Amino acid sequence: MIITDKLIEHFNENLLYQTMGIRLTSAGSGRAVSELHPMQAVCWPLADQPHGGILFTLMDTTMAWAALSTADHATNCATISLQIQYPLPAKGSFFICNVRTVHSTGRSCFMRGEILNTDDQPVAMGQGTFRIIQGEGIC
Amino acid sequence: MIITDKLIEHFNENLLYQTMGIRLTSAGSGRAVSELHPMQAVCWPLADQPHGGILFTLMDTTMAWAALSTADHATNCATISLQIQYPLPAKGSFFICNVRTVHSTGRSCFMRGEILNTDDQPVAMGQGTFRIIQGEGIC
Amino acid sequence: MIITDKLIEHFNENLLYQTMGIRLTSAGSGRAVSELHPMQAVCWPLADQPHGGILFTLMDTTMAWAALSTADHATNCATISLQIQYPLPAKGSFFICNVRTVHSTGRSCFMRGEILNTDDQPVAMGQGTFRIIQGEGIC
Amino acid sequence: MIITDKLIEHFNENLLYQTMGIRLTSAGSGRAVSELHPMQAVCWPLADQPHGGILFTLMDTTMAWAALSTADHATNCATISLQIQYPLPAKGSFFICNVRTVHSTGRSCFMRGEILNTDDQPVAMGQGTFRIIQGEGIC
Repeated sequence: MIITDKLIEHFNENLLYQTMGIRLTSAGSGRAVSELHPMQAVCWPLADQPHGGILFTLMDTTMAWAALSTADHATNCATISLQIQYPLPAKGSFFICNVRTVHSTGRSCFMRGEILNTDDQPVAMGQGTFRIIQGEGIC
Repeated sequence: MIITDKLIEHFNENLLYQTMGIRLTSAGSGRAVSELHPMQAVCWPLADQPHGGILFTLMDTTMAWAALSTADHATNCATISLQIQYPLPAKGSFFICNVRTVHSTGRSCFMRGEILNTDDQPVAMGQGTFRIIQGEGIC
Repeated sequence: MIITDKLIEHFNENLLYQTMGIRLTSAGSGRAVSELHPMQAVCWPLADQPHGGILFTLMDTTMAWAALSTADHATNCATISLQIQYPLPAKGSFFICNVRTVHSTGRSCFMRGEILNTDDQPVAMGQGTFRIIQGEGIC
Repeated sequence: MIITDKLIEHFNENLLYQTMGIRLTSAGSGRAVSELHPMQAVCWPLADQPHGGILFTLMDTTMAWAALSTADHATNCATISLQIQYPLPAKGSFFICNVRTVHSTGRSCFMRGEILNTDDQPVAMGQGTFRIIQGEGIC
């Protein structure tokens, strides 16, 4: 699936991203990059930190775009398993998520990613497996 | 930490829960139960399914309450690592999350949980480690 | 795949199991049980504890039998991902591993298991995904 | 803990490593590298592949050395959780494991690693958390 700038612009309008403060910036060749400007509603229980579930959502959705970019006829993909670790508290108002495909079998993708704060410190690190879906989908 | 019905009522008013559709129903003795009535904003990319990140958030926050309930002087807790698997698509508008503490060392808690649809099928299964925090906290 | 007592007896003769001290005791209907009497060679760096990798091997191989028992035409299976947590030090000379299939799609199996010491305390807890293989196999 | 060549030579004589075919080649500054020449006894159920538990043991022990190398007064360390994924079958008779510390809090270490075949393809990828132990230990 080729993820053009126009598609990215379109995807970024979805309500989930708007509600959380997620924005996809690039996706292609098995890689993807996203940003998080966490909305106040998702900073809880500490007012200056996005909830861990928001970091997970950022990681998961960025991995999905990276996985989709590896498969020509993909229309959607499903997370099979994803493990996330939180080395440091996610203090701040801006984070970047970098994701890459470590290996793809065509149908299954093995992904890795990190979320960095503005000091380039890892506030989350993840690895997971995704399944590519063809047929009825989101695209 | 003793999590009374009054505290639960108070916690359930937070914006993160309201935005996603999460509600804690009980927490004590290392166990906790929550519900998810997913809000439309967090059902994406498929309109009839909460995003996997919402299921993760439900699992993570329910584990946190269960972990907190094991420690007398806890004021907060931090997720160290959490792995989630998605056996089935999470179709539907109501889900229950059950969590238990498998072992607690006092400071570290080893947690497990499942999210079930209304047919009692597992749409998510998780296990993770949490660290109990004393001192300045959320409670 | 139907795992008869005769097959179990045969499987238990393999060198990997003999070297570690693993013995499958039952497998069927998506469940399996194994035992570990750790050999001295695999108790390192502490002489009274099997290495964590031995506990992982016990968990992984027991999950594989449980997964195989769910699929009629399975000839082998592959571990896709497996996460293990170690709540307590594995002191002792006898452990039991209990595994169950949480969900099977026919081709993918979502597994959970625990390893208990003789006081029924959890020294390891795991969850993972396995892929059923048909065709050339081990059986 | 400073892991000298002499210490490495000493560690490599342990029975677990000899039984499996593991050899630590370097450890320092939060990184470590090991090799696996799998012994025939641990290649099962397929004769040309080390069991997944052997790859896990290689990953786990290499992470432990890398974690120990970050802490001055460490005497041992414990695996808290470790997740491993297997992107490709581990065919062959030689593998290299590279591990790095993503973040250390002094007491907790967040680790990542890969096991590569001789074509530099990833046959395993892992991430985990380790706890540094001071006091009575292995060193």
